[in-house]
Amino acid sequence: MGLDKAVTKPHEALAAHLADKLDAVNTLIRARMASRHAPRIPEVTAHLVEAGGKRLRPMLTLAAADLCGYRGEHDVRLAATVEFIHTATLLHDDVVDESASRRGRPTANLLWDNKSSVLVGDYLFARAFQLMVETGSLRVLDILADAAATIAEGEVLQLSAARDLATTEATYLQIVRGKTAALFSAATQVGGVISAAPEEQVSALFTYGDALGIAFQIVDDLLDYQGDPKATGKNVGDDFRERKLTLPVIRALAGAGEDERAFWRRTIEKGDQRDGDLDRAMTLLNGCGALDETRAEALQWIDSARAALGALPDHPVRDMLDALAGYVVARIN
Amino acid sequence: MGLDKAVTKPHEALAAHLADKLDAVNTLIRARMASRHAPRIPEVTAHLVEAGGKRLRPMLTLAAADLCGYRGEHDVRLAATVEFIHTATLLHDDVVDESASRRGRPTANLLWDNKSSVLVGDYLFARAFQLMVETGSLRVLDILADAAATIAEGEVLQLSAARDLATTEATYLQIVRGKTAALFSAATQVGGVISAAPEEQVSALFTYGDALGIAFQIVDDLLDYQGDPKATGKNVGDDFRERKLTLPVIRALAGAGEDERAFWRRTIEKGDQRDGDLDRAMTLLNGCGALDETRAEALQWIDSARAALGALPDHPVRDMLDALAGYVVARIN
Repeated sequence: MGLDKAVTKPHEALAAHLADKLDAVNTLIRARMASRHAPRIPEVTAHLVEAGGKRLRPMLTLAAADLCGYRGEHDVRLAATVEFIHTATLLHDDVVDESASRRGRPTANLLWDNKSSVLVGDYLFARAFQLMVETGSLRVLDILADAAATIAEGEVLQLSAARDLATTEATYLQIVRGKTAALFSAATQVGGVISAAPEEQVSALFTYGDALGIAFQIVDDLLDYQGDPKATGKNVGDDFRERKLTLPVIRALAGAGEDERAFWRRTIEKGDQRDGDLDRAMTLLNGCGALDETRAEALQWIDSARAALGALPDHPVRDMLDALAGYVVARIN
Repeated sequence: MGLDKAVTKPHEALAAHLADKLDAVNTLIRARMASRHAPRIPEVTAHLVEAGGKRLRPMLTLAAADLCGYRGEHDVRLAATVEFIHTATLLHDDVVDESASRRGRPTANLLWDNKSSVLVGDYLFARAFQLMVETGSLRVLDILADAAATIAEGEVLQLSAARDLATTEATYLQIVRGKTAALFSAATQVGGVISAAPEEQVSALFTYGDALGIAFQIVDDLLDYQGDPKATGKNVGDDFRERKLTLPVIRALAGAGEDERAFWRRTIEKGDQRDGDLDRAMTLLNGCGALDETRAEALQWIDSARAALGALPDHPVRDMLDALAGYVVARIN
């Protein structure tokens, strides 16, 4: 490819390898997010869809199909489907009700954003649905319908579990599957299914996507407590301030004494946060080994993702997917 | 059926005729709205699903299948699908409208929060999607995917057109299809499709559902300006206060002089409403014939709905669908 491997990131290498297909995906996305009747729809979606995301999820579908020797056009449709579902969930995640309920009625501007987010998200879900029906594969439809249910279920679960100190790791994992891994695993799996790959390979593609997605989210949750804002673009402590019970805190709670438990109860469960609380949280998480354990958990999922690739054909894309897995945890190593 | 026809309303007659199937639909709805992981989901949906709606949309699917001689179980799945889609759109509408009550009870977004309404709505869409995949009919999936897109598009269109006095009747019709008719016509059409009915009958079922849905919504918009709150359960003037540009006002604007136009611009477009404005709006709508024209338009759509039934088999259910069409406009006759 004429690119210097030392400076090319794995998702950039994948994008270069899949450039023609990705172009076709972008063309299809632009065509299908149009609306004959409601010009507001592309206005709202354009800023998200064109905002220069990495197109990671559609690339996973294209990569899986390429790896399994697919020759056809349905990979492009499914890649666009996956990006539409992702964009729709982002829009629905954006719905802000909490600032509204604190300040009384929301401003007209905030309201408009909420309405547009909900309805344009629904429109993108429907467009995704139309695209996948065009593949004519009931198994693909089945996989994506299940993923959509897991995504919504995980998001609802997060609403009720977020501030509950009794939340278990099993629940956290279910939330993480909903937030991230269900769409990753559906994206890779459907790439294998349309290629008519052997069952063993389809299953390996699912496992790779699932484990990659879980690791991806755990890394995100870890960086929230120890990342470098300049490198990650995230503020340290956002999850703490928003009282989200993520894996680092769940791990810290497991071995917490009464004092620490009272601290988490006050800050996360009751939301009574004072100056210096974030510092104390970081000290607690570091001191009890919770951050190290969280890091180890992410690495373990990445090991599973890489191991799953063993069942897939020897192919340059397989190496790229392996490198991608390594890259996901590179930021925490 | 042992019921006195003189006092039985058409949807009650249909419900009695389809009682066993409707029981199966209700059982399936309860089973599928459960969530292993997120108990909040059935809490939110039970609130709506059990609130004693008429199950009009699922009945349309069951009736269409019955009329076309269907023998199988997919009609129950599709009826539940249609009710899930309907419930999901209600949940999302409540966020958009900021409604405080629905079917005489507080809305989910008031009882829980906007996020629950959005995410549980998404969950129901996903569950609907799973149910229809189980029918194994790509044509059914195609019809329902298109309906979902029309619904979302119509809702977005309403956001931008609602307060715009330049809104045409064509745009109003597109909004009405999104709000109501697209799901009615999909509900009847898929009943014919799973029955493998002749194309002429499938097309007639579509036309019946489409025309019935359009009439249903026009009647709703008309009653908003002239209904009896005790009979309709609606407050007169809600649309006026919420500045929704519906058919009565569109018709009034068509023949309005500069004075009247200024009135509508101030009250609907700018939202500057004063004491006595609703009375003046009613006087204007009555005086210019806009309400009569709106009534005539609803009756015309009902004529189309009834005419479409002519292509369908002679069957007791056909008579019930005919009576149902008459009932939709009985309140305005």
